Amino acid sequence: MSFYSKLDAAWATSQSALCVGLDPDISKLPQHLQIDPLGIQKFCIDIVDATADVVCAFKPQIAYFAAVGAESQLQAVCDHIRTQYPHIVLILDAKRGDIGDTAALYAKEAFSRYQADAVTVNPYLGTDSLVPFLTTPNKGTIVLCRTSNAGSSEFQTRIVNGTSLYKHVAIAAASKWRDIGDTALVMGATFPKELAEVRSIVGNMPLLVPGIGAQGGDITSVVRAGRDEAGTGLVINSSRAVLYAGNDLDFAQASRRVAVATRDEIRAANN
Amino acid sequence: MSFYSKLDAAWATSQSALCVGLDPDISKLPQHLQIDPLGIQKFCIDIVDATADVVCAFKPQIAYFAAVGAESQLQAVCDHIRTQYPHIVLILDAKRGDIGDTAALYAKEAFSRYQADAVTVNPYLGTDSLVPFLTTPNKGTIVLCRTSNAGSSEFQTRIVNGTSLYKHVAIAAASKWRDIGDTALVMGATFPKELAEVRSIVGNMPLLVPGIGAQGGDITSVVRAGRDEAGTGLVINSSRAVLYAGNDLDFAQASRRVAVATRDEIRAANN
Repeated sequence: MSFYSKLDAAWATSQSALCVGLDPDISKLPQHLQIDPLGIQKFCIDIVDATADVVCAFKPQIAYFAAVGAESQLQAVCDHIRTQYPHIVLILDAKRGDIGDTAALYAKEAFSRYQADAVTVNPYLGTDSLVPFLTTPNKGTIVLCRTSNAGSSEFQTRIVNGTSLYKHVAIAAASKWRDIGDTALVMGATFPKELAEVRSIVGNMPLLVPGIGAQGGDITSVVRAGRDEAGTGLVINSSRAVLYAGNDLDFAQASRRVAVATRDEIRAANN
Repeated sequence: MSFYSKLDAAWATSQSALCVGLDPDISKLPQHLQIDPLGIQKFCIDIVDATADVVCAFKPQIAYFAAVGAESQLQAVCDHIRTQYPHIVLILDAKRGDIGDTAALYAKEAFSRYQADAVTVNPYLGTDSLVPFLTTPNKGTIVLCRTSNAGSSEFQTRIVNGTSLYKHVAIAAASKWRDIGDTALVMGATFPKELAEVRSIVGNMPLLVPGIGAQGGDITSVVRAGRDEAGTGLVINSSRAVLYAGNDLDFAQASRRVAVATRDEIRAANN
């Protein structure tokens, strides 16, 4: 099944645009997991089990595992998601960007080692750096366009031929990259006006939208600005607000409550 | 010791601007190492031992290890370089780029886990994505500017306010980033004219130059265009041409011969 088809099915099955980002910061885990050698794996799996019926996607962020040498725990989390919830989209947030043979190895890391359905990548090195991702069958390539951080304006909004750089990225995504493989874009929730402009450029292309919750993006603005003509097309990510809703033995139920509320807020905004 | 000081000392001690890139592609290793579970570690360590006296730096490329789940082998290679050749600069080629807490974790991966002296990063997300790297004491942040691949022209050379995007990166590097921490730039050997222009922008900032050897960059052009006023400032990388010079039991000596010849060609070009 193609990435686009799997995402369409995940939206239909879950009736949710929510993606839970798995950014397991050891210092923020409940005490009993901070001292457990497999703490971040157990934490993520408990969050996954508690929220799987209210999300269309999970998005583990590889840096949280790599910083502490926990690749095997990331692998276990990915395996758990794929085997227990095969209808949910698994996005590896890695923001890779390199050339030629090296890009092909990053594609192998994401798609073969972790068996993600899609991976985030950086466009600064141009189309040839994206091709190894785009040409992997049935996988999705989610390209950074306009990121949610304050500093994203430094280069992304510079004007080239009368058009912001990030819109040139969107134009390339909607034309040549989409012709090569299933492409999506990262659009920060903190810039709803730009989100609407990019939606008008890319038609019904999926947009991964981080930046709600802890980063302050407004859900209603995101949904109204970012949905496609069919009222879908968005994968709206929340990480910290969901993950760290509680910090005792019942943390996963606290996370579930926030995830349900966020899903419902997204639904309400779409009416 | 600061990154700049360590690099200055490495240039002085080695009398070499050559960096050997460690990109261990299993399919290209000598047969006896392809079937060895620790093959890529042994291959890299043999290359390091055979070339350490002719280089100023080694640059392991993390994708080659991550694609095959060999982080522990990368760690062993980094440990070997740091303990056996503490005067040589260790650059982790990772091209990371993310925001806030995540960027801080990538800095931890490069500087704490692998204890690299410097790491390559991507500027697309702006200054705030670079700060966790720049503020790590005694470490170097090597920012992609104009990369060596054909596709690099797609965004990097777009004109913003009359100046190419990559020159805006160079200007930021030479001003605000350098004020925060030891900054260097990646400038592809395949674009010597641009290399000269960036040298004129950044003064004596170190430039990491990939793209000679297999990628076709000309050493004499690179040295003449890229050296600073003192005739130094360049870390010129060769990966495949050195690594895969031979493919039998004597592979490391074949690599050494190419490394010596490349160092000598760089020296000759600098006269």
